[in-house]
Amino acid sequence: MKIVVDAFGGDNAPLEIIKGAILAQQKFNIDICLTGSESIIKKVAKENNLDISNFSIVDTPDVIPVDQTPNDIMKEYSNSSMALGLKMVANDEADGFISAGNSGALCVGGTLMVKRLKGVKRPGFAPLLPTMNGKMFMIIDGGANLDARPEILRQFGVLGSLYMENVMKISSPRVALANVGTESHKGGDLQREAYALLKDSPINFIGNVESREISEGACDVYVCDGFTGNLILKNYEGVAKSVSKAVVNIFKKNIITKIGALFVYKDLIKFKESMNADIYGGAPILGIKKPVFKAHGSSNANAIFHAIRIMIDYINANVPQKIEESFNKIKEQQNG
Amino acid sequence: MKIVVDAFGGDNAPLEIIKGAILAQQKFNIDICLTGSESIIKKVAKENNLDISNFSIVDTPDVIPVDQTPNDIMKEYSNSSMALGLKMVANDEADGFISAGNSGALCVGGTLMVKRLKGVKRPGFAPLLPTMNGKMFMIIDGGANLDARPEILRQFGVLGSLYMENVMKISSPRVALANVGTESHKGGDLQREAYALLKDSPINFIGNVESREISEGACDVYVCDGFTGNLILKNYEGVAKSVSKAVVNIFKKNIITKIGALFVYKDLIKFKESMNADIYGGAPILGIKKPVFKAHGSSNANAIFHAIRIMIDYINANVPQKIEESFNKIKEQQNG
Repeated sequence: MKIVVDAFGGDNAPLEIIKGAILAQQKFNIDICLTGSESIIKKVAKENNLDISNFSIVDTPDVIPVDQTPNDIMKEYSNSSMALGLKMVANDEADGFISAGNSGALCVGGTLMVKRLKGVKRPGFAPLLPTMNGKMFMIIDGGANLDARPEILRQFGVLGSLYMENVMKISSPRVALANVGTESHKGGDLQREAYALLKDSPINFIGNVESREISEGACDVYVCDGFTGNLILKNYEGVAKSVSKAVVNIFKKNIITKIGALFVYKDLIKFKESMNADIYGGAPILGIKKPVFKAHGSSNANAIFHAIRIMIDYINANVPQKIEESFNKIKEQQNG
Repeated sequence: MKIVVDAFGGDNAPLEIIKGAILAQQKFNIDICLTGSESIIKKVAKENNLDISNFSIVDTPDVIPVDQTPNDIMKEYSNSSMALGLKMVANDEADGFISAGNSGALCVGGTLMVKRLKGVKRPGFAPLLPTMNGKMFMIIDGGANLDARPEILRQFGVLGSLYMENVMKISSPRVALANVGTESHKGGDLQREAYALLKDSPINFIGNVESREISEGACDVYVCDGFTGNLILKNYEGVAKSVSKAVVNIFKKNIITKIGALFVYKDLIKFKESMNADIYGGAPILGIKKPVFKAHGSSNANAIFHAIRIMIDYINANVPQKIEESFNKIKEQQNG
């Protein structure tokens, strides 16, 4: 098995990416290929005493400026670490690709280069978020496309369900439609029609779920259009981070509160870790022919390690084939 | 000044509503009229030794079942505590109306009965949420309508700005457009066109703001369509509540952690109170001719007290007139 990792994507590239790749290589004994400037990768590895002799490196001279639009990135930076990584996967030179770079570019590039599976109208960007009970759930679409149609939302539900079942090992994942109320008539035409389609799909559709319920683990897959999904995703991360920070600040106030912190320190750290999305391995782009993951922009070595760990499960589970089979079955039902 | 309060709206009606109204009446010396079943109001007051002799009561026999749609409520329950309260305001028999009942029904009823101000295309439901720095910001639209057009989003920005300036006393409120990125080209057509219109409006438009920034106080008014706004609003409340609860549970774990809690107890309570939306007085329906507030469904006496307190400011500030003036000015600009 060979996994390509974008050494030049994200805030902590390339050092943390290289470190994470080394951890995973040691643990799982797979082939890892890094894309990025070979000279910089080697220089950083040397400066930090990191042994990268087991990796192959694909030298990619282009560096993507931050202010580019996703379409421009894929058009104008076809020799970037992201584009060449995607190309390797598309050409079957590798089994999967992980990048902590620009999400939009990865979605556009993943769709155009790795290509959609037969029957998939639109791939979905599918980040995972931690709930309060130590589990996680998926938002699909987290922003690959901004709008959606009912059939696309139905497909997101099926894609998410297959991923959560086969990769995250959740049996009969609870798929919910993001909506302003729980009753089936709630929402606009998009939601009402998507509700009817999801209800008729071979998944465990539990109906509409309001966004106040998701942090308590009300569903495993939360289906919505990409604009809404992107705003919920970022709001979820923002509020969780803000509240956690505010609570930690309470302990830093004075010597009395600092003493109090000693009594709960271990449990607070444990809670903070359970809220850490790093261990869930990043967000798959679902509906394309090969596994492609977006790792969080702030990924450290641990996050990259877990992204590689989960990608191995993803590759072994052969999810793309299961998606094609499921979509064929739905199509047969529709025609029959 | 006379304010009508729906004694039969919300989870804690009528007892907490009556208590809150008594607190406000004592403090501000205004006329308060309660709508609801007169016999039950009197019975509950007597059982709890509450003096309601200063209130007028409008007896409303209809009780709204929970599973009704907003349109049905206003059509079929025209003698409900909500409908009669709105009618009094619409007929200039009172200066403002507060209800903790069904949001959708209040938005529909407020629009149909109290009627839109001249030039307002759609009223916006405008809940306020606390930020981590002890301030608050407004989401508009929080769900009065599910979709929007660019001109409607522009109007939401102006409505929100006028309310925050005149009622919440924030000088030059920072109005932001909810979007998936900060650059002006981000989002769909709706966002790009709304961006251009908001930029040309007589408000302090600070551009696109991502939803991960709002909990840290990135803006005073967060403009979006009602579907997105409703999901952000409930997600914000849900995550903040979940994380706070999870942290409190850490302290309850065992005798050691309970001792730790003693050291930070005061500060934790203070933080919890700063996150309590009760003191911000509920959500105005902006763009209609008279002040109408939706108090939170879980409102207690304190929340109702503050809703009445803020409504007094709202009435005194004469916001509806300021809205009409501002909308006239924008129209003149457009024509000139």
